[in-house]
Amino acid sequence: MKDQNNTNSEGWVHYITMSPPGLNNNTADVDRLTAQLKQQLNIQSLSIDRSVIVSLPAILRKSNFNVRCVLFGYDHCYHLLDVQPSNECSPVFGLAIDLGTTRVVLRLLDLENQRTLTEITIDNPQGTIAPDVLARIHYTDQQGGLEDLQQLIIKAINQQIQHICNAQQIDPKQIVCMSIAGNTCMTHLFLGFPPQTIIREPYIPVINRQMICSSVELGIEMNPQGRIFIFPNIGSYFGGDLISGILALNMHHQKETSIMVDVGTNAEVVLGNKDWMIACAGAAGPALESGVSKIGMTAGPGAIERIKMDQHTFTWQTIDNKKPIGICGSGFIDLASVLFQSGMLDIRGKFVPSRCKDRLLNINDIMHFEVVPAEMSATGKHLTISQVDIDSLVRSKAAMYTILNTITLSVGVNLADISVFYVAGTFGAYIDPLSAITIGMIPDLPIERYQSVGNTSLEGASRVLLSRNDIESVSDIHNHITYMELNVNQEFMNRFSAAKFLPHTDTQLFPSVKIPSI
Amino acid sequence: MKDQNNTNSEGWVHYITMSPPGLNNNTADVDRLTAQLKQQLNIQSLSIDRSVIVSLPAILRKSNFNVRCVLFGYDHCYHLLDVQPSNECSPVFGLAIDLGTTRVVLRLLDLENQRTLTEITIDNPQGTIAPDVLARIHYTDQQGGLEDLQQLIIKAINQQIQHICNAQQIDPKQIVCMSIAGNTCMTHLFLGFPPQTIIREPYIPVINRQMICSSVELGIEMNPQGRIFIFPNIGSYFGGDLISGILALNMHHQKETSIMVDVGTNAEVVLGNKDWMIACAGAAGPALESGVSKIGMTAGPGAIERIKMDQHTFTWQTIDNKKPIGICGSGFIDLASVLFQSGMLDIRGKFVPSRCKDRLLNINDIMHFEVVPAEMSATGKHLTISQVDIDSLVRSKAAMYTILNTITLSVGVNLADISVFYVAGTFGAYIDPLSAITIGMIPDLPIERYQSVGNTSLEGASRVLLSRNDIESVSDIHNHITYMELNVNQEFMNRFSAAKFLPHTDTQLFPSVKIPSI
Repeated sequence: MKDQNNTNSEGWVHYITMSPPGLNNNTADVDRLTAQLKQQLNIQSLSIDRSVIVSLPAILRKSNFNVRCVLFGYDHCYHLLDVQPSNECSPVFGLAIDLGTTRVVLRLLDLENQRTLTEITIDNPQGTIAPDVLARIHYTDQQGGLEDLQQLIIKAINQQIQHICNAQQIDPKQIVCMSIAGNTCMTHLFLGFPPQTIIREPYIPVINRQMICSSVELGIEMNPQGRIFIFPNIGSYFGGDLISGILALNMHHQKETSIMVDVGTNAEVVLGNKDWMIACAGAAGPALESGVSKIGMTAGPGAIERIKMDQHTFTWQTIDNKKPIGICGSGFIDLASVLFQSGMLDIRGKFVPSRCKDRLLNINDIMHFEVVPAEMSATGKHLTISQVDIDSLVRSKAAMYTILNTITLSVGVNLADISVFYVAGTFGAYIDPLSAITIGMIPDLPIERYQSVGNTSLEGASRVLLSRNDIESVSDIHNHITYMELNVNQEFMNRFSAAKFLPHTDTQLFPSVKIPSI
Repeated sequence: MKDQNNTNSEGWVHYITMSPPGLNNNTADVDRLTAQLKQQLNIQSLSIDRSVIVSLPAILRKSNFNVRCVLFGYDHCYHLLDVQPSNECSPVFGLAIDLGTTRVVLRLLDLENQRTLTEITIDNPQGTIAPDVLARIHYTDQQGGLEDLQQLIIKAINQQIQHICNAQQIDPKQIVCMSIAGNTCMTHLFLGFPPQTIIREPYIPVINRQMICSSVELGIEMNPQGRIFIFPNIGSYFGGDLISGILALNMHHQKETSIMVDVGTNAEVVLGNKDWMIACAGAAGPALESGVSKIGMTAGPGAIERIKMDQHTFTWQTIDNKKPIGICGSGFIDLASVLFQSGMLDIRGKFVPSRCKDRLLNINDIMHFEVVPAEMSATGKHLTISQVDIDSLVRSKAAMYTILNTITLSVGVNLADISVFYVAGTFGAYIDPLSAITIGMIPDLPIERYQSVGNTSLEGASRVLLSRNDIESVSDIHNHITYMELNVNQEFMNRFSAAKFLPHTDTQLFPSVKIPSI
């Protein structure tokens, strides 16, 4: 029999020893087991599927009433998913899923020894039908569109389960729980909930609160008694991936006020500590994604991700050290920063011809700056960035700063008083905070306060599969957050206008940034 | 829109009016509905199946956020089963089932106006495989035996649902909830739980506590989101049908102490009031069922159900006024009573030849009493009862009295202090309490304290489909009852021996019974 001390008492796997029944101790099997579990785990309510009960009498007697139980659930209502004899039980697993619009990351966890076994990233197959959230929601207006999109993601997850199980030589039935952290739309599509009202005034999701579904009802090919936990949303533009992120960062337990920013098409921001939490989301503009400039691209091989300038010579670094084929968000921010610092961009973000010299080209009456000459690019054509691209970036960075400014002002917190500034997601993983500060995108804090935190959505999704405390925290976080609607009023527009300069109209806000003289 | 006042606030059907969403009121659909329901019904937790949520956004908008909700559940955890626009909703029904070993009674209830629409009694189809509890449990030892028995009852219920729905011109989907009250074995077979341990020392059921299953997992062809409530057992020999009976009789709310007795092969007894309750079950002997005497039969056409004696002439009454073909339990008790009162049986229960005269016949060295002469019976043969039959009845009545005596002694209650003596089931419906008192089967209470209460199991099963308070009471009753093991020790045997006289060794216990002088 395994040592009970090997298992985490806050986890989902528990060894139970009961006294066997006798004439003076004739409690029924289910009642005997649940009474012991409730007492040992200090829980109030425990449900058991009929199909688990069916095999219980034989398992209890075979094991002489020493069994390993796997539970899952929240809110004092747990489900008993699996019971096996303590001395001959097979490992059980959980699958944490970060359900992104573009990418889906799956992580297999051993529930008992709390280890990550493998992690796989795939493209969200819904992308083949419609690339972004808006297009997918529009697609659901078609007859059968919602079902198409739902089945695409369900099938993809099932394929990956099969793939992972083959590679790890385990049975899909050994996967007993799953967690899904995604934005509001991806969560709706996964559950088959019509998402149309999310994007139409007054922007109402079908559901915000967390759910547990059975694997069978969703058609997920894991343990048939398995349960799937779906993170709650705060609203149409603040999804479960962010709740999961807050959990992963322990923001809800910290005494000091911290802020988390996740930037994509939208900037999602949450600010707070153990006593209060406020969140908002706003359009940051697409400048930081692939869709803007002609040479913009998502981070991938050949994308310029880092740019430095030595005198007037650019040095760049591409992903996988390929010849450059484009520039991704972090590279674009570096570029704007070095152009500004070298005086090639003025404080309005306009190219300065006298400084750009022959790198500035007039193409169809729009000024372009040559980043990579033709002979050095992978395409054989030069890579240029236009004034339009730069203008777009300036609007995006101004929106970002204004959102940060607005949320902190709303609760009377000074940006300088924020203890940690978490930058989440892919953006956070690649951006150079110094460059972002230089162009006034993020506040001028000591650089060590910035912390790139990677995939916090996946991290939080993993935590609920490993800890009862953490799953209970999810609804606490959900109930704890005040969502602030970003009213784009005159005051907001004034702040936005002031932020449309490099780094800002009020240069005192960015004391560390040297303003070049032109 | 229907008038909200038409619905019982303690029932399961509720009309909800929400304020429609707006920019300053952007709660998600599910959260909006559940918040309103929780507040209106003062409930803490409400789960909703994914499939109900899928159609919710359209229903809410079509109805301008005025909907009728149907719930079901207990223990602060309710399930939302059905949501329809308030102004165009179809009736919803519940099906209460008394799941007997021999007979199954189904009652269709309109959940909204709380009316019974129809009631159907069928034979339990498991009887074709094995007539009684023991035989059925033995049958489950065979490969596939449990599944056979489970499918027989599930199919029979599905057939009756189809039949009822055709007759009432309703759709099976309109049946949204069901309740099952049966003895421990029948409940196990219905759920597909292996019942073998029920009848083997130390007599352990798989489950005692109540359950809710989904209709789909049990294969019951009603609303696919429908739920089935299964009454809890107290133990192997005290089933959900009795818990249901206690609920129906409101014993758990009464200040005065009452007792309920249900007699079949076993006598099941519960004694108590709102503060305490004690139950026990014991073998009452089969004398009161069909299996004992040669002419014994279950109550049916031609069974002698009532016997009187005028001077030395018997008058009998048969079911449906047919010529007699046998005698059922109530007739047998009447017979013993009149034989005793006329001096033809002595206090030991032995035939007195001088009084019986030529009605006493020696057949194979056993004394028989001719109840019906050949020319008056349906079979053309005389109907007789033997000394062996009488001895068996005396043992049964002694067991019954001893059980009643023991349970009341155990809590220091005087039999005379019992306010109401409920006699449940078929036995209760037919037995003449005066006869039963005369032979000392039941205590010598004023006759008006005896109350025949019919099918309390079906009645209680109906109550949980109509009232949230009543379903909550079920677990209260279950937790409230102390089950007393009837230890057949020397003391019990002494009491049993004393009770093997007509009416009792201690005639002072039966002051109303005139002891004939022989």
